[in-house]
Amino acid sequence: MRRYIFFNGRFYPEGTKLLSILDRGLCFGDGLFEVIRCIKGKFLIFSKHMNRMKEGARFLEIPFPYKDGELLNVAKELSSKNNIVDGELYIEITRGEAPRYHTFPENTKPNFFMVLNPLRKMPEGCWTEGVKVISSPDIRWGCCHLKTVNLLPNVLAKEEAKKQGAYEAFMTRKCKNSTYLTEGASSSIFCIEKDILITPELDNILPGTTRATVIEIAKRLKIEVREIRLFLNEFICSNEVFLTSTVSEVMPVVRFDERIISNGIPGNLTLEIQSEYKKFIKEHLE
Amino acid sequence: MRRYIFFNGRFYPEGTKLLSILDRGLCFGDGLFEVIRCIKGKFLIFSKHMNRMKEGARFLEIPFPYKDGELLNVAKELSSKNNIVDGELYIEITRGEAPRYHTFPENTKPNFFMVLNPLRKMPEGCWTEGVKVISSPDIRWGCCHLKTVNLLPNVLAKEEAKKQGAYEAFMTRKCKNSTYLTEGASSSIFCIEKDILITPELDNILPGTTRATVIEIAKRLKIEVREIRLFLNEFICSNEVFLTSTVSEVMPVVRFDERIISNGIPGNLTLEIQSEYKKFIKEHLE
Repeated sequence: MRRYIFFNGRFYPEGTKLLSILDRGLCFGDGLFEVIRCIKGKFLIFSKHMNRMKEGARFLEIPFPYKDGELLNVAKELSSKNNIVDGELYIEITRGEAPRYHTFPENTKPNFFMVLNPLRKMPEGCWTEGVKVISSPDIRWGCCHLKTVNLLPNVLAKEEAKKQGAYEAFMTRKCKNSTYLTEGASSSIFCIEKDILITPELDNILPGTTRATVIEIAKRLKIEVREIRLFLNEFICSNEVFLTSTVSEVMPVVRFDERIISNGIPGNLTLEIQSEYKKFIKEHLE
Repeated sequence: MRRYIFFNGRFYPEGTKLLSILDRGLCFGDGLFEVIRCIKGKFLIFSKHMNRMKEGARFLEIPFPYKDGELLNVAKELSSKNNIVDGELYIEITRGEAPRYHTFPENTKPNFFMVLNPLRKMPEGCWTEGVKVISSPDIRWGCCHLKTVNLLPNVLAKEEAKKQGAYEAFMTRKCKNSTYLTEGASSSIFCIEKDILITPELDNILPGTTRATVIEIAKRLKIEVREIRLFLNEFICSNEVFLTSTVSEVMPVVRFDERIISNGIPGNLTLEIQSEYKKFIKEHLE
């Protein structure tokens, strides 16, 4: 079966040539994206993702061309047209196509598209046994709170992780004589120290949707949560580590570079949060 | 007349839809570009630009699909097909189209394109009377030596300059208690202090082709050249300031934020280098 994608108001077979070389996403990274989980043909916290995209578009002064509600219908149509009920929805908006000058062009319509792919295949062991993560210098720019397509540093970190047989790269920055963790190349970082859940504060990192969910879950479980600067030397001594993202959900980390974390097995609190997250999912499909 | 562009080995009318939404330039900023001046149907230091692109491609492990010489012929064909003899050649290579995972895909062919536009119209006064420039925090990533399409920070700086009625934004970084200049959003920075030509050292900035040419010219003119960390407090006291780029060539700067530079008129050494640059151009067309 030929798969369909949504582009600027219409459905097209995947692979259709739809963009000219003048698109500003292509030439300037002038665009934003979201990834949303599709489960049983419904979409997890769809509105939160769209709100983040709309906020980003406001920041970048990209006019957002759709009303609330319209896009959820499109997403559902993609699910039924393509017969994909368990998947990853990728959404991107760029400033559109215009002659190549840096400044914002006038009277340009954004390009907007949505693709629904089947959920990528990952071994169940990732969630039950945990994964390996490497450290990588955070060389990204100063607006990481925006989910833009300027992702080359993330690509390079992820490729390095893959070359080292790891699932993800946790990025680190330096301040004075210390090193602290910021976020994964495509995930948020959590660790547990003495029953306290710690995650890097929102200081030039993405306000992750799964990150927010996990904080909410932890608070409901009466787990103390601290959003702080997470120093490397404290992090490596923590009792448990996990990462979160739309696709990875709540994934235990059992190795960080050459260091074994949490005796090499997922920690109890991690597994508890993981299981609560599964419940959360069921209750927050739109 | 319909204008033609070059894409993956063939010529197409401009505006043709040539890319699918899977292109990694579009989704990850996973691409490199160059801008080359076309003068009288020939191309200024074409080989140097292509060498820089090939070096970048090697760094990013993007296979470069053309041999030396092939592309200069394509550029010349664009010039004659489109009847443009005075223009700006834009060249981009992306890692190509593949399902959206961060890591480098296997067996993917790069997308490669070239567009020749007529030279943008700018008032002659920019070169004879000088331009205004604003300062802007350098929020870019850690691999600015690569000419990638991750240009959103540059776009935002350039847009801010436009809003303030300026031609360009000079970016600044902080170190300890000092502020230093790095480069313009799409240009290199030069200043002259007591007959010494000063330009920011190659520390996470682009090794500009015009920058290199100007250094070469200055040395030929027996002007002392220093590539150093250019501190803001020294810069604002300098006698002359100019910026360089493929399109701007050697352009005097007479205002920096609210400050008048060089009594508000282009400096003598700036004009001498500008005039030598014009001679250089004539001798280095390929």
